[in-house]
Amino acid sequence: MRAFSQTTEDLARQEIELPSWAFGNSGTRFKVFTQRGIPRDPFEKIADAAQVHRLTGLAPSVALHIPWDLVDDFDKLGEHARDNGVRLGTINTNTFQDDDYMFGSLCHVDQRVRAKAISHVLGCVDIMDATGSRDLKIWLPDGLNYPGQADLRDRQERLADALGQIYARLAAHQRLVLEYKLFEPAFYATDVPDWGTAYVHCLALGERAVVCLDTGHHAPHTNIEFIVMQLLRLGRLGAFDFNSRFYADDDLIVGAADPFQLFRIMTEVVRGGGCDESSEVTFMLDQCHNIEAKIPGQIRSVLNVQEMTARALLVDRAALAEAERAGDVLAANAVLMDAFYTDVRADLAAWRESRGLPADPLAAFRASGYAERVAAERVGGTQAGWGA
Amino acid sequence: MRAFSQTTEDLARQEIELPSWAFGNSGTRFKVFTQRGIPRDPFEKIADAAQVHRLTGLAPSVALHIPWDLVDDFDKLGEHARDNGVRLGTINTNTFQDDDYMFGSLCHVDQRVRAKAISHVLGCVDIMDATGSRDLKIWLPDGLNYPGQADLRDRQERLADALGQIYARLAAHQRLVLEYKLFEPAFYATDVPDWGTAYVHCLALGERAVVCLDTGHHAPHTNIEFIVMQLLRLGRLGAFDFNSRFYADDDLIVGAADPFQLFRIMTEVVRGGGCDESSEVTFMLDQCHNIEAKIPGQIRSVLNVQEMTARALLVDRAALAEAERAGDVLAANAVLMDAFYTDVRADLAAWRESRGLPADPLAAFRASGYAERVAAERVGGTQAGWGA
Amino acid sequence: MRAFSQTTEDLARQEIELPSWAFGNSGTRFKVFTQRGIPRDPFEKIADAAQVHRLTGLAPSVALHIPWDLVDDFDKLGEHARDNGVRLGTINTNTFQDDDYMFGSLCHVDQRVRAKAISHVLGCVDIMDATGSRDLKIWLPDGLNYPGQADLRDRQERLADALGQIYARLAAHQRLVLEYKLFEPAFYATDVPDWGTAYVHCLALGERAVVCLDTGHHAPHTNIEFIVMQLLRLGRLGAFDFNSRFYADDDLIVGAADPFQLFRIMTEVVRGGGCDESSEVTFMLDQCHNIEAKIPGQIRSVLNVQEMTARALLVDRAALAEAERAGDVLAANAVLMDAFYTDVRADLAAWRESRGLPADPLAAFRASGYAERVAAERVGGTQAGWGA
Amino acid sequence: MRAFSQTTEDLARQEIELPSWAFGNSGTRFKVFTQRGIPRDPFEKIADAAQVHRLTGLAPSVALHIPWDLVDDFDKLGEHARDNGVRLGTINTNTFQDDDYMFGSLCHVDQRVRAKAISHVLGCVDIMDATGSRDLKIWLPDGLNYPGQADLRDRQERLADALGQIYARLAAHQRLVLEYKLFEPAFYATDVPDWGTAYVHCLALGERAVVCLDTGHHAPHTNIEFIVMQLLRLGRLGAFDFNSRFYADDDLIVGAADPFQLFRIMTEVVRGGGCDESSEVTFMLDQCHNIEAKIPGQIRSVLNVQEMTARALLVDRAALAEAERAGDVLAANAVLMDAFYTDVRADLAAWRESRGLPADPLAAFRASGYAERVAAERVGGTQAGWGA
Repeated sequence: MRAFSQTTEDLARQEIELPSWAFGNSGTRFKVFTQRGIPRDPFEKIADAAQVHRLTGLAPSVALHIPWDLVDDFDKLGEHARDNGVRLGTINTNTFQDDDYMFGSLCHVDQRVRAKAISHVLGCVDIMDATGSRDLKIWLPDGLNYPGQADLRDRQERLADALGQIYARLAAHQRLVLEYKLFEPAFYATDVPDWGTAYVHCLALGERAVVCLDTGHHAPHTNIEFIVMQLLRLGRLGAFDFNSRFYADDDLIVGAADPFQLFRIMTEVVRGGGCDESSEVTFMLDQCHNIEAKIPGQIRSVLNVQEMTARALLVDRAALAEAERAGDVLAANAVLMDAFYTDVRADLAAWRESRGLPADPLAAFRASGYAERVAAERVGGTQAGWGA
Repeated sequence: MRAFSQTTEDLARQEIELPSWAFGNSGTRFKVFTQRGIPRDPFEKIADAAQVHRLTGLAPSVALHIPWDLVDDFDKLGEHARDNGVRLGTINTNTFQDDDYMFGSLCHVDQRVRAKAISHVLGCVDIMDATGSRDLKIWLPDGLNYPGQADLRDRQERLADALGQIYARLAAHQRLVLEYKLFEPAFYATDVPDWGTAYVHCLALGERAVVCLDTGHHAPHTNIEFIVMQLLRLGRLGAFDFNSRFYADDDLIVGAADPFQLFRIMTEVVRGGGCDESSEVTFMLDQCHNIEAKIPGQIRSVLNVQEMTARALLVDRAALAEAERAGDVLAANAVLMDAFYTDVRADLAAWRESRGLPADPLAAFRASGYAERVAAERVGGTQAGWGA
Repeated sequence: MRAFSQTTEDLARQEIELPSWAFGNSGTRFKVFTQRGIPRDPFEKIADAAQVHRLTGLAPSVALHIPWDLVDDFDKLGEHARDNGVRLGTINTNTFQDDDYMFGSLCHVDQRVRAKAISHVLGCVDIMDATGSRDLKIWLPDGLNYPGQADLRDRQERLADALGQIYARLAAHQRLVLEYKLFEPAFYATDVPDWGTAYVHCLALGERAVVCLDTGHHAPHTNIEFIVMQLLRLGRLGAFDFNSRFYADDDLIVGAADPFQLFRIMTEVVRGGGCDESSEVTFMLDQCHNIEAKIPGQIRSVLNVQEMTARALLVDRAALAEAERAGDVLAANAVLMDAFYTDVRADLAAWRESRGLPADPLAAFRASGYAERVAAERVGGTQAGWGA
Repeated sequence: MRAFSQTTEDLARQEIELPSWAFGNSGTRFKVFTQRGIPRDPFEKIADAAQVHRLTGLAPSVALHIPWDLVDDFDKLGEHARDNGVRLGTINTNTFQDDDYMFGSLCHVDQRVRAKAISHVLGCVDIMDATGSRDLKIWLPDGLNYPGQADLRDRQERLADALGQIYARLAAHQRLVLEYKLFEPAFYATDVPDWGTAYVHCLALGERAVVCLDTGHHAPHTNIEFIVMQLLRLGRLGAFDFNSRFYADDDLIVGAADPFQLFRIMTEVVRGGGCDESSEVTFMLDQCHNIEAKIPGQIRSVLNVQEMTARALLVDRAALAEAERAGDVLAANAVLMDAFYTDVRADLAAWRESRGLPADPLAAFRASGYAERVAAERVGGTQAGWGA
C-alpha cells in the first residue's frame, strides 16, 4: 500500500463544489420539514457554504440554481462570494417548476414551450458570462408517465435540436454538462435516462459537451464505477453530482449508504486520471438534508469524499497489476480492500491541522456558534427551498 | 374458459373505494402542477368522486384522509355523500405532515410526540364513529434516513404499544388496517416495511387487525400475487391500495404499468375467495394523477380493475388443475393466458348498458360537461392538495 | 385503431430465428432436467426447429452456437436445413466453456488466452463463409467477480483491439453483432454490461458493427423500449435476443413474464422502422425451456412475438399524435391500450389458415405425433445441452 | 467508542460453520471451472475445512449436504472430523437434483414425489441422530417458472403438511431451520420466497422451528438488518447463511460486495443478543468460490465475519442512544460510522497471536504448503461438486 504522505499532493488539489440549494429546506412529496436559521436569499446561502470551506478547505465554489438563485446583480453576488472566501461555480438550469413544463421542456411537443425552455437556458448562459462560470449543467425533468403519452423518438430529435442551439451559444471556455437520470419526476420514460443517451447527445454536440454522473440516478444493480471508467476513457466525464441512496434518488449524504461503492468510484476516478492536475472533472454535491442539519451535513459530505479519495489514493496499483497477471483473485481483491479498510481519519486530521485547518471541522463548526447566530438573526423573510 | 355471463354475478358485487385526495392536486417533490376545477373542500371532492360512481356503478364509497378532510360536521358530510349517491368509507390517518413527526410518529423516541400521534389516530376513530366507517387505515411515514439514527428494535416495541392502545379503542365492528411500505419518505429503514412486519403486528393485536397491501410498496422483483395468496390464506388481507408503478411508489393508474401483474393479482384474489360474497377484503385506489385529468383518471382506474377482474373470473380453474396434475407447464400457462388475452371490453360495455350505465363511462363523462362546469364554478378558494 | 387486415403485409414478412440450443437440455446451476426425445446432434436440432417453421411459417432460420453445433461438413448441414425447409442463420461464438476462459476471453490479461479466443471467433467467421450466414453474434462472459480482480479500463482497450481484429476479417456483407449483458456469469463487473458500451465499440468498429439487445440482460427498472428507440435512431440496432424474465436472466418464453413490455418493445420497433421491408433488424429467440417441452415452447414463443407484433401494428399513430398534441395523457394512453387489449388471436388463426398453415400450431404439433416419434427414435447417444 | 479489549470476550465465543461444498467445484449454468487439489469425498472436504479452523480458530464445525456428503459410516466421518479438530454440524437436505423434483419436492402436486422428498428429509434426521447434529436445514427449490403452472395456495398447504411430518420426527434437542429465497431455480414464484412465509410456517410448527437468513436471498433494496432485528425480536432467527452479492444470489465471499451492509447486519445481531452466550443463532457460510482458491476463500470469509463482528462490538450504544434522544441524526450516524471505519485488523492479529494462532492466517496457509500437497496427492477419482 502507498503511504498517506504520498497522497497529500493529490488531496491538496481536491475541490468539491457545494450546491446552494443544500442550505435551503428540502423534503419529500409528503413533507418539507423546516429548520431554524435557513437562508432567505442567495447571499445567505453563500455565507453558509463558505463556512464549509473555511473549516475544511475543500469547497471553494458554490453552484447556483436558476431561478432559485436569481439576483439583480451577479457581480455583487460574486463579490460577496469572494469576500466569504469562495467563488461562484456551475450554473444549473431549472425547467421543471413552471406549469408550462407539465409535459416537458426541451423535448416538449409544443414549440412555444420549447422556445421558452431554451430561452431560460440561454439566460443561464448570460448569467455564466456574468459570474465567470465554466459549466452549464442541464438536468431535465422531461419524460412520460404513461406509455403512449408522447413519441419517444420525436422527443430525442427535439432534444438534439434544442441542445444544439444552446451549445452554439456557449463561449469557447464554457461547457455544456448534460445530466442523466433514470426516473423521477417522470415515471414511465425519461428523455435522458442513462449515460449512453447523454453520451450520444454530447458526441453530436462537440468536445465541450460532457456528461454529468449523479450517483443516485441509476437503475438498481448498476455498476457505477464502470460508467466512470468508460466515460473517462471516452473523455466525456464532465462532472459528478455526489450523494448516496438505498432505494431511489434518495439524495442522502455521499458515502452514507454504501461507502465501499464510493471507494470503488474514487478508485476508478484516480485510475482514469480524474484526480490529475490536468483533469477537468468537476466534483459536486447534490443532496437533500431533509432531517439533518444543513451545514454540518455538507461538512460531513465533503469529508466523506476526502476520506474516500485518500483511501483510493492509497491503492497499490503495482501490486494490483501483479495479482491480476498472476490470476490471484483473492490477492488482487486484498490489495483493494487493504486501502479501503485503512483508517485515514487521524492522518487527515493531522494533515488538516498542518494546513491551518481544524482537525475536526464538525466540532469546530459546533464551537463556532454560527448555527445559533444565524438562527437568531434569520427571523422573518422566506426560507429558501425548492419552491415545489 | 368460463363464459363472460358466468362472471357477472361476482362483478355485480364489486366495489372499489375512491380516495378523496385523488381529486386534489398532487405531484412530486419537484413540482405540483395545478389543474382547473380542482375541489376546494371535502364536499367538492365527494361531488367529484360521485361522478365516478354515477358513470361506472363501481365506486360507492369515498375514503377520507384526516386532517385533509376534516370538517366541522361529519353528519353533514355523510348526508352530502348520500345525496350524491355514495357513502363515506375508510378513515386514513395522517401522521406525516406535522413538524413534530420529523423523526416518526407512533415509533418516535419522544413520548410526547408519540402521544400526540396516538391522540390523532384516536381522533380518527371518533370520526369513524361519526361516519359509520368500518376501517381505520394506518400508514406510517416512520423510519430512518441514516443507519444509527435510531434503535430499530425499540421502535418496534413502541409501535406495538401504540397500535395496542389504538386497537383497544376500536368498536367491535371496526378494523385496524395496517399498511406496509418499503421506503419513502424514509430512505434507510421503514418501521413497517413489508407484509411480514405488518402481519406480526396484526397477529399480536387480534382478529380485527388486518394488512393493507398497496401494490406500489414493494421491493423490485417482489411477487405481489404470492403475498395476496399468503395473506388470504392467513385470513389477514384486509385491503388493497391499488395503483401501478414502473420504478418506485409512482402511484400511476392501476394496471397502467403492468396489466398482467394486475391480472395475476386479481386471479389470486378470486382463487382465495377475495371476491366472494363473504369476503371482507376492501379494494381501494391510492393514486396520483399528477399530469392527467383527475375524474377521468379515476374512471379509467376503476374500469381497469373491473376489466381485469372479469378476465380473472374467466379463468378455467378445472383446466388449470388438470394441466398442473399432468405436469404440462405450457398447457397450464395457456389456460391463464387465454383469460388474460380475452378482450372483455365489449361484453362489459353491453352488461353496463343492461344495468342502466353508460357503455363508455369516459365518453359519458366528457359529454356531461361536468369538468367544464366545475372549472367555471370553482374559482377562488384554495385547491385541495397534500399540503406538503 | 387500424384494422387487422392492414397489418398482414408486415406480418407476412416477419421472420424469427430459432436458436439451435433451445432444443437441447438446459437448466440452472442447481440442476439440468433431461427430457425425452432431445436431439443428439445439430442435424436433429435442425429437424426440430423445422417443425416450428412448418407449423407457424415464422421461423425460417436457425442460429448455430459454436462449438456446440460444430460439424465436419457445414455444406451438408446447410443442405439438411434446406431439405427441412429452413436455413442456417446467425453464428454464435462461445468463449465461456474452456478452462482457459476463467478470467475472460477477448478481454483476458494473458495475450495467449486472448489470441485463442480471437482465433475461435475467426474460426466462426470461416463457418459463416461456409454457411452463408450474415451475422456473427458475440456475447462474452468476460468480467470480474471481485473488485480489484482486474483493471476495467485495460480490459476495454483489449476488447476494442480484439473486436478490431475480428471486424477486419468480415466480408462486406457480414455483420458483427455485439451483445451486452449486465451480469452472469460475472458477478461484479461485466466488460460489455450495457447498450452504451456495446454502442461505443460498434461506433469505433464501423458501420457493419451493430448491437444485439437481449431482453433479459438489463438492470431492474430499465426501460427497454427506450433503448430500442435509441438504437434504431442511431442506426445500430442489429438484433434482438427475445426471452422474458421476472428476476434476472431467467430466459423464460418471450412475452410470458410481461406481455405489455413486449408490446411496448414491438411498438417502438414498428415506430422506428424495424418491421419495414428495408430493416436489417434480426429477431431471434434466446430462451431456456428448463421444465417445459422444447418444440412447443418454441412454437409458443414465435406465436407470442407474432401476436404482439400484430397488436403493435394495430396502433393508430395518427390518433396517438393528435392526443399528444392535445396534451391528453389519458387519450394517448388509451390509443395504445386499445391495441394491446385487442384480441388478435382469432384473426391470426384465420389468416394463418388462409396461408395454408394450421390455425392452432400447438394443437397441430400435438396431433403430428412428432414428439412421440423422436422420443422413440432418439435412444442412445448423448443429448445435446450446454455442456456446462 | 468501546475499546477493542472490551470485544474479545464476545469474539472468543464466535463460531462460523463451514459448508463442506465450498471446497468442491462450483460455477454457473455456463461453466464450472475445475481447480487442482479439490476433495474427492467428504473426508477430504473435512480435512480442507479443518485447515480453516486450525489457522483462524473460528470454524470448529462443518455442515454436510445430503446426498453429496453421504457416507457409509457417519461415526467414522465424525471421528475423522474430531481427529482434524472439528465437528460435524448442520445437515442440509437436497431435494433439487433428482429428475422427480422438476416441479418441486415438498410442495409437489404428486403425492408420490412429495413422499419421496419427505422420506429424504427424514433420512437426513436419521443422519443427524448419527452425527449428533442439532440443526436440519431445509432449503427448497420448489416454485414455478410460469404463472398458472400450479396452484400457489395448495402448495402452501402441502408444504405445511410436509413440514409438520418432518418436525414431528425431530428429537427435543433438534431444530428445523427453514430457509427462504426469492428466486432461482424457480423464475416466477418460489414457495418460501421471504422471511414472512418462513416465519408463518415456523410459527405453525412450534418453538424449535426457526428461520435461516441467507444474505443473498432477498429482493433488491431489501433492508436485511431490519429482518435480522425483527426475527431476533420474534425469537425465530435460527441461522445465517453468509455470502455477498452485487446482483442475484451471486454467492460471493461474505462482506466482499457491501462491507457496510455486513457491518449493519452484525450490529443488529449484537443489538438483538445474537452474539450473547445464550444465543442459539448459528453463523454459517454458504458461498461459491467459482474462480478463486477454495481454502483461502473460506479463510478470507471467516476473517471478514470476525473483523466486522469486532467493529460491531465497538459501537458505543450509550452514545447512540443519547444522540437519538437528542434528535441529532448526524451525531448518531457518526457513532456508528466511527466503529465501521476503525481498522481492527492489527488488534485482531495481535489477539490472534496471543491465542496461539497465526497473525496472518492466509499467509500461514500459503506457507504451510497444504495446497501444493493436496494438489499432488488428489490425483484420480472424481472431484466433488454440485453434481448439477
